[in-house]
Amino acid sequence: MHAARNDNGVLGGYLPRVQPIRTVDWAPDGAAVRIIDQRHLPASFVERDLHGLEDVCDAIRSLAVRGAPAIGVAGAMGMVVALLPYVGDPTEPFMDRLRVVAAAIRGTRPTAVNLPWAIDRMLRQASATAGPPASVIAALREEATAIRDEDRAMCERIGEHGLALIADGARVLTHCNAGALATAGIGTALAPIYLAAARGQCIEVFAGETRPLLQGSRLTAWELSRAGIRVTVIADNMAASLMRAGRIDLCIVGADRIARNGDVANKVGTYAVAVAARHHGIPFYVAAPASTFDPATPNGDAIEIEQRHADEVRRGFGALTAAEEAAVYNPAFDITPAALVSAIVSDRGVHRPPYDFSVDHHIASAVA
Amino acid sequence: MHAARNDNGVLGGYLPRVQPIRTVDWAPDGAAVRIIDQRHLPASFVERDLHGLEDVCDAIRSLAVRGAPAIGVAGAMGMVVALLPYVGDPTEPFMDRLRVVAAAIRGTRPTAVNLPWAIDRMLRQASATAGPPASVIAALREEATAIRDEDRAMCERIGEHGLALIADGARVLTHCNAGALATAGIGTALAPIYLAAARGQCIEVFAGETRPLLQGSRLTAWELSRAGIRVTVIADNMAASLMRAGRIDLCIVGADRIARNGDVANKVGTYAVAVAARHHGIPFYVAAPASTFDPATPNGDAIEIEQRHADEVRRGFGALTAAEEAAVYNPAFDITPAALVSAIVSDRGVHRPPYDFSVDHHIASAVA
Repeated sequence: MHAARNDNGVLGGYLPRVQPIRTVDWAPDGAAVRIIDQRHLPASFVERDLHGLEDVCDAIRSLAVRGAPAIGVAGAMGMVVALLPYVGDPTEPFMDRLRVVAAAIRGTRPTAVNLPWAIDRMLRQASATAGPPASVIAALREEATAIRDEDRAMCERIGEHGLALIADGARVLTHCNAGALATAGIGTALAPIYLAAARGQCIEVFAGETRPLLQGSRLTAWELSRAGIRVTVIADNMAASLMRAGRIDLCIVGADRIARNGDVANKVGTYAVAVAARHHGIPFYVAAPASTFDPATPNGDAIEIEQRHADEVRRGFGALTAAEEAAVYNPAFDITPAALVSAIVSDRGVHRPPYDFSVDHHIASAVA
Repeated sequence: MHAARNDNGVLGGYLPRVQPIRTVDWAPDGAAVRIIDQRHLPASFVERDLHGLEDVCDAIRSLAVRGAPAIGVAGAMGMVVALLPYVGDPTEPFMDRLRVVAAAIRGTRPTAVNLPWAIDRMLRQASATAGPPASVIAALREEATAIRDEDRAMCERIGEHGLALIADGARVLTHCNAGALATAGIGTALAPIYLAAARGQCIEVFAGETRPLLQGSRLTAWELSRAGIRVTVIADNMAASLMRAGRIDLCIVGADRIARNGDVANKVGTYAVAVAARHHGIPFYVAAPASTFDPATPNGDAIEIEQRHADEVRRGFGALTAAEEAAVYNPAFDITPAALVSAIVSDRGVHRPPYDFSVDHHIASAVA
């Protein structure tokens, strides 16, 4: 393990050594959404083109594309490719189809707010567009492209705001993947880490592997290694003892939904990290675009937590990893109460407690 | 998920529905140690006979047999089968061989104190025995059998003392496996659970799967299901949020070594459970035979923590589960400071803080 900048001295600019990851984007012909199929990482890098509604829904549901911002972008782009076959329909059935498509994509995963936020934005755009289906599709394509581009810009701004929290030499614990693979840009929680590394700061990341689907060890470790940033994978249950040993300076994670009072829904295991950080007096930060703020949700208790299939735990890695007869509890997310969150970094700045996200920041942002 | 006693009403006596598990015992001909090869659970139940020193060391090192008390018993019995081929040697080379065998078995795993404790006891027995190798082997066989039988009795006593801590209807979180598969008897942490179930109490167990080797989901869930006790497997990172939801009444885990001041070395992840339990005001208990107390070790910082191979994390069950280029940190154990331990249940009783294990309880016990 070496700090990358000592190894190869390439992190003087913005990670010039590596091509940016394109987690979700248009296929070159515009007829499909091209994603990195994250189910195959880290063993192989597979891109996949989503051609219609079923492809899009399946990719989101199966976590081929995941991460709250990325599924917002994929959902928006997915609406366009799902509607392409109907461009010749009369306006009224086309608009019915549009509502069906929107509902289907919105229904794929319940917890992250970015997906319904993006879908609503697309629906507003469709309503505001006069003209035949071809014009509506053109307007939707433009809106989805804007959502992608705004996501990229938001990642950069989160990174810049977050830089203030990361000292040179910092040893950072993260959980799950809130990196480039979770967004259309350089990530949320990982954005300040990329920018700090690009400035030549020495950064060491500990990535909780994130059972059951191992987004930490498979995805975060992959993208940080690829960028030449020093990363060490741990089992989730090792984080607390690393803290006790004085080996963690701060924690930073992403979010799938942030309630009005600052309660955070994020990948299951986040709460355990926050509890351990509090016990050891270590700062615990959340990084997310303002589109993750949900003024309509008063607190974490009001957030629906997706329950996933028992086999994700029971048959990990293809093997039978739990006794067949035992029950399995497999929530995809947990709630970290605002009281345990030292600060929330968004594209709007660094928010400190007491939190109040009653203003609809992302709409304000879109308007600004 | 149903409480077993409601399903089949069989828990009126001591689990009459199931044959006791024989985790480690003599093979019928006495020439081998017969173990349940735990690497194959829960997919298949495989018994394996260990015939010589290499077999014994390999089985302990590879965790075919594991659990602090069980490896103490396996180490003691293993000495006997490793010495059998040398019964015809003259006394002096035989005694040299005995020391070599003892050192090799003692060296297999560093953290649990029960293994060196059992080996030392065997060495004392050998020194105290006059006569040719055959007599020494006979005396050692008797001593190893006594260690096995004492272990069984200790499990029962731990269970009886621990019963006071478990109310009817209790929802219990455990980590790793401190059950029948970790001992020659009914386990340590699971002993009170078995006895409570046998008395007809309604008990629900949540088993942290215990990455990387999944002793919780593979072993604890298997043996509890087999006994008809309701058990739910969770990823380790879900324990804290279950506590926050009010779904855990108490935690109970085993121990590999308990320092004089009550600091506990146990499977990695134990400390995270203890921290979360403290945060939520939930009792955190440790159950272990008195042979786990180590008066020679002043506190947890003095306990050597075994580091295991990165591939246990990186290649979970044959698949590449972490980026190849990333480093991996994989300690087998962690230290839970005495301040987080509500009580320690041993075969001697329920010990409450402040702990002082400066008296050598297990020798006192053996003498008594």
